[in-house]
Amino acid sequence: MKMALRACLRTKPGLTGLLSQLSCSGHAAARRAPALVAQRSSSSTSQKIKVDFDQSSGVAVMHMQSPPVNSLSLEFLTDVCIALEKLEMDKSCRGLVVTSSQPKVFSAGLDILDMYGKSPEHCAEFWKAVQEMWLKFYGSNMITIAAVNGSSPAGGCLLSMTCDYRIMADNPRYSIGLNETKLGIVAPFWFKDTMVNTVGHRATEMALQLGLLYSPAEALKIGLVDQLVHEDQVLTTATETMTKWLAIPDHARQLTKSMMRKPTIDKLAANREADVNNFVKFHHQGLYSEVPGDVSGDA
Amino acid sequence: MKMALRACLRTKPGLTGLLSQLSCSGHAAARRAPALVAQRSSSSTSQKIKVDFDQSSGVAVMHMQSPPVNSLSLEFLTDVCIALEKLEMDKSCRGLVVTSSQPKVFSAGLDILDMYGKSPEHCAEFWKAVQEMWLKFYGSNMITIAAVNGSSPAGGCLLSMTCDYRIMADNPRYSIGLNETKLGIVAPFWFKDTMVNTVGHRATEMALQLGLLYSPAEALKIGLVDQLVHEDQVLTTATETMTKWLAIPDHARQLTKSMMRKPTIDKLAANREADVNNFVKFHHQGLYSEVPGDVSGDA
Amino acid sequence: MKMALRACLRTKPGLTGLLSQLSCSGHAAARRAPALVAQRSSSSTSQKIKVDFDQSSGVAVMHMQSPPVNSLSLEFLTDVCIALEKLEMDKSCRGLVVTSSQPKVFSAGLDILDMYGKSPEHCAEFWKAVQEMWLKFYGSNMITIAAVNGSSPAGGCLLSMTCDYRIMADNPRYSIGLNETKLGIVAPFWFKDTMVNTVGHRATEMALQLGLLYSPAEALKIGLVDQLVHEDQVLTTATETMTKWLAIPDHARQLTKSMMRKPTIDKLAANREADVNNFVKFHHQGLYSEVPGDVSGDA
Repeated sequence: MKMALRACLRTKPGLTGLLSQLSCSGHAAARRAPALVAQRSSSSTSQKIKVDFDQSSGVAVMHMQSPPVNSLSLEFLTDVCIALEKLEMDKSCRGLVVTSSQPKVFSAGLDILDMYGKSPEHCAEFWKAVQEMWLKFYGSNMITIAAVNGSSPAGGCLLSMTCDYRIMADNPRYSIGLNETKLGIVAPFWFKDTMVNTVGHRATEMALQLGLLYSPAEALKIGLVDQLVHEDQVLTTATETMTKWLAIPDHARQLTKSMMRKPTIDKLAANREADVNNFVKFHHQGLYSEVPGDVSGDA
Repeated sequence: MKMALRACLRTKPGLTGLLSQLSCSGHAAARRAPALVAQRSSSSTSQKIKVDFDQSSGVAVMHMQSPPVNSLSLEFLTDVCIALEKLEMDKSCRGLVVTSSQPKVFSAGLDILDMYGKSPEHCAEFWKAVQEMWLKFYGSNMITIAAVNGSSPAGGCLLSMTCDYRIMADNPRYSIGLNETKLGIVAPFWFKDTMVNTVGHRATEMALQLGLLYSPAEALKIGLVDQLVHEDQVLTTATETMTKWLAIPDHARQLTKSMMRKPTIDKLAANREADVNNFVKFHHQGLYSEVPGDVSGDA
Repeated sequence: MKMALRACLRTKPGLTGLLSQLSCSGHAAARRAPALVAQRSSSSTSQKIKVDFDQSSGVAVMHMQSPPVNSLSLEFLTDVCIALEKLEMDKSCRGLVVTSSQPKVFSAGLDILDMYGKSPEHCAEFWKAVQEMWLKFYGSNMITIAAVNGSSPAGGCLLSMTCDYRIMADNPRYSIGLNETKLGIVAPFWFKDTMVNTVGHRATEMALQLGLLYSPAEALKIGLVDQLVHEDQVLTTATETMTKWLAIPDHARQLTKSMMRKPTIDKLAANREADVNNFVKFHHQGLYSEVPGDVSGDA
């Protein structure tokens, strides 16, 4: 996996700031960003993300296709955020399904190559992109459903937890969880808050202390995912589930979602800079001394 | 149901302020208010509420009998609050069972006729009464048990959640939940807080976003009710359960209950006026554009 | 049990302040404190606590052996706190198992003889020791596992809830819970907070209002304990479980544990004096008018 991640890194262009790109649609990002065309069904593809938008249903499907394991690199996070923002601004898009095109993995989580051996500036930029991804997804006005069709450790688990509903493949080789402590890393407070909001305080305390990766059955039991279906049915079940959510008037649902999540979002929004500084400081102190194991489900 | 609600409306006298009535026992309300007589067993009946108080056990049973579906109108809420306040002040009354005399329904929730086409002043008065009902029940010093012998959507679910224990009829045609979003309405923060305190953050988030109405079995599973019994046994089970609660010294139990609920109560108490203004504003902006479906359990 | 507690009291030397002893290792306490010797496996015994420390594994086992029921008296709490502090400061000690050497009981909870008929000063000193025990255990950097090999009411339940993991004997005669209200007492806010963190708001509300003592099976169901094993296997299972926890890098685990518990700890730390005053005041008003029943599991 390390080799693959290195290969992945080599293709990464120099990015000069996620936030400026997100607001200005800078050149490098704009080239890769998916274009949403106003026709009945459109499919747009960046290097690492493919978005299918069915305008008749108002539902988009975001396929993550960043080989080999959809690691959340600065580049990939930028793509994801731009794609999400475009969908968010398109009033005809009411629902979003997030899934993976890579075999056996939903997302392997944060790209360790963006956390090691880079400048403090790069490190800060990377962490802002992680925050941005979380803020955009957790605060999305769209109905968001995670079609978790493979393993989903660490940041991959976080991404799925930002969604309104999680459907996971019932393959016992897959696992999901915030396993940071196993890597000698501490999950930041907003990872923790998101998990507490999902499975409660006690389950979070044990999961985070032990860095637990749950099998699909265990994840369902503690409420980390909402539903298990056969591997082949994850995406279709997500689409069917979306229909149920689309029946709810958007305005009331959006206000309700915001009421539930705003305190948690405000907490990070008020502490972004301190959180970035904290990440950079720990990174350069060499705290993160271990690397993730295989997450492909073959173990 | 609409016709019945209209009929219900025609009989409603002009009320000039819930709070002043609650403190002054104004004329209209006083006529209907249940009189508690200091004898072994007393039964007192207002137009819409019948209170049976057994002084030997210290337990009162409040039967809601506002046809057809115990909608929480300004008038009915006023009756309920006055009855509750009288019981609260009677030191010999230690426990209260709340149940319905109407077939198939516990309470259909807030009366939409008090939310539509009325003056802002009426609207504000109505909302203050909803707040008052919640504050009185959620903060009651008495042991409160909801004998949920029928469907209990929206405000009906809220009322049951204010109690210390919920027993529901196991009839699968009945349902319970805060289904506001399905009606295009947003449950206010204190409805949400009450539900979070009952079933936790995640179950509340999904329930409120989707406006879910749960079958008795589902409600038991997520903890929205505590016990299911046959329809014929709801009230007797409530009485038996009360015996167990009565064995606990009042003072310690009341202080403990207050410790658990005070932060949630203080939050509304500190924001009553803003919450009223918010309700009135949304009401006159026509946000509430849909009406509840049938809640009688026949659907 | 009362006679036994009285006997227990007679042996109690005059202590002149828990906190000063904890910092200064005053004479009476120091004599009883377990001595940790830097050898492969050491066993040290105070009058009421036996600590076995296996330096090769980095795991200590604290056996509570204060006849008859490990009541948490001022004296015993002092011993426990001193033993814990010594282990905490020994960097080679990474994990702690807490268990009982007394038959049928883990700990009967706070010693009522330290709450009744004593001077306000003694009362305050006693309560500070209870706070200290909770602060030290709930905030421990070590992995703490409760091997609950008997009944564990009130303060005994609190002690077990401060640990990271709870294994209980599956003997249906044993019970566990915060049963304060049954004794006419109110569990203080930090007992409540600890329970909310363990089993959630709703289960805590009902448990505390009714002073519920749960059978092992019930305790497992609501999450008050994490695992049930045969009585003979409690300690060995605790040791095996510890191995799993020891695999996690200490630094990341400790920071994670602190992130989860700090808000709750800070709340008591900021209100210790008011909490002591509150306890003393209620005590001398004679609020605590009932005594605990038998907790030996024979009932």
